[in-house]
Amino acid sequence: MKVVVLVGGVGGARFLEGLKALLGGREHEITAVVNTGDDVWMHGLRITPDLDSCMYTLGGGSDVGRGWGRAGETWTVKEELAAYGAEPSWFGLGDRDIATHLVRTRMLRAGYPLSEVVEALCHRWQPGVRLLPMSDDRVETHVVVDLDGESKAIHFQEWWVRYRAEPKAKSFVSVGAETAKPAPGVEEALLTADAVLIAPSNPVVSVGTILNVPGVRAALRKTEAGVVGLSPIVGGKPLRGMADACLEAIGVETSAEAVGRHYGSRRTTGTGILDGWLVHTGDRSDVPGVAVRAVPLLMSDVDATAAMARAALELAGVGLD
Amino acid sequence: MKVVVLVGGVGGARFLEGLKALLGGREHEITAVVNTGDDVWMHGLRITPDLDSCMYTLGGGSDVGRGWGRAGETWTVKEELAAYGAEPSWFGLGDRDIATHLVRTRMLRAGYPLSEVVEALCHRWQPGVRLLPMSDDRVETHVVVDLDGESKAIHFQEWWVRYRAEPKAKSFVSVGAETAKPAPGVEEALLTADAVLIAPSNPVVSVGTILNVPGVRAALRKTEAGVVGLSPIVGGKPLRGMADACLEAIGVETSAEAVGRHYGSRRTTGTGILDGWLVHTGDRSDVPGVAVRAVPLLMSDVDATAAMARAALELAGVGLD
Repeated sequence: MKVVVLVGGVGGARFLEGLKALLGGREHEITAVVNTGDDVWMHGLRITPDLDSCMYTLGGGSDVGRGWGRAGETWTVKEELAAYGAEPSWFGLGDRDIATHLVRTRMLRAGYPLSEVVEALCHRWQPGVRLLPMSDDRVETHVVVDLDGESKAIHFQEWWVRYRAEPKAKSFVSVGAETAKPAPGVEEALLTADAVLIAPSNPVVSVGTILNVPGVRAALRKTEAGVVGLSPIVGGKPLRGMADACLEAIGVETSAEAVGRHYGSRRTTGTGILDGWLVHTGDRSDVPGVAVRAVPLLMSDVDATAAMARAALELAGVGLD
Repeated sequence: MKVVVLVGGVGGARFLEGLKALLGGREHEITAVVNTGDDVWMHGLRITPDLDSCMYTLGGGSDVGRGWGRAGETWTVKEELAAYGAEPSWFGLGDRDIATHLVRTRMLRAGYPLSEVVEALCHRWQPGVRLLPMSDDRVETHVVVDLDGESKAIHFQEWWVRYRAEPKAKSFVSVGAETAKPAPGVEEALLTADAVLIAPSNPVVSVGTILNVPGVRAALRKTEAGVVGLSPIVGGKPLRGMADACLEAIGVETSAEAVGRHYGSRRTTGTGILDGWLVHTGDRSDVPGVAVRAVPLLMSDVDATAAMARAALELAGVGLD
């Protein structure tokens, strides 16, 4: 069975972990199309937070307690950069992580596309899931906010990490998206999949950004696979992160139903992407043209996450039993 | 008093430390013209070993025991790079050091010349000596050796660090030297100095490389200051490093006298750079047209090094008493 999942960072990585545990890797092939809108240049290094979250988590190298970055991480370089007064100082740049960034940056500067860089890095991590960046082109999420009395567009990382999503997001811009192409393999994976899942990732700055890459939405609407999303909103609150601050900016209520409707039906709308919508037990959700089912969606451990993945595949019409 | 010193790495840094202790920094100004022929790109980082040795040593940040790099250094990034199989793995790239390389590389890529990068890094280290790269242009020492039955030119660092100067050096090439210019301030410093000293650094790959930059030798010959060299050869052996392997390649005997003759007299030869030549007590040295004096030259501690610097300044005609 070929399953494709659209994912963001930490939540997406955890969902992939459950799906991988469920499918066991044997005759099944999992492809993750990963958001790269959060990618950023810092201190001359190209940093791809969501791809790294997936790679480290699936490769057994992530810090499970902190939720991001490498296990056993140290912070010597970051402290030294601060001693030089080198900005930005607010981004968590671990020593182990920096080695990954050095390898990536060197390859990118040598002309390799990001997708080949990811493949090279995965030789070490063996994530057991094919990780594809949504695009090899630079697409960066910028956030329009009021800062110091002025309206400014800042990089998503600055808004998210430095300001903890405090200044109200007025809008999001996917800089470079208009001219970007999906990375090699993305459209083909979607078109030849047996099931496509939308991970319970941020619907705006993770999944939304992937959908902004021209060609992705069309492939999602064209594929013969069932497309099922998992709600990142549980009981009216984001599972993690600050998705509510993002949803507010695009005028979508922080509820499973509103996010389901925002994604919309493949069948009955002109732009929708869903056949099925999985919400948390007890969350009411009515999405016209979409089959809705409620199961526990808390990703509290790998088994719970595997059960979610199983329910999602069933809803997509490719049950394992 | 304005003193200019031509220096390489560790030995040059130690000499500068003694000179700085002697002159106290008050009304005196020390300018070091530092070899950059050892500079190298590794893992996408621009590394300037000699400049860093000077900066760390004079700024109190160097590992005195190991003789190079930062005190309290850790090696996490290096280990992680090795886990990726990223080459080269033979170069000692410490975590603290990497922060310096990141700041430097970012500034260079942004278009700042190396001399301005050094100035920026020195804001932190306050070395108390003006450090000037010999050139802002890329000049790299390559070494012609026989390897695997073939004659090859490899970067100096590869020969020195990876192969520990084992394959016999057939010749040295200063790649890029023909079109290089001295960094801003180098020629002016030499021409307006009260004394110019040649540190007891490697005469071939440190001092010799600086002399390969067009304009430096001419300024040394033109300055009204006395020019005095300190022999890096003591009792027929290099003070440190593997200078003998370098001298052999250019057909110069490993003796104080031979190195003094190699530098040559400003007065009686057409290309020489010395007025005075300081050798170690007991080392006989006859250099035509050059005033030779013997004093202890071991740099065993800062006081001993300061005494060497004092003797060198006296020989240059600007005694402190």
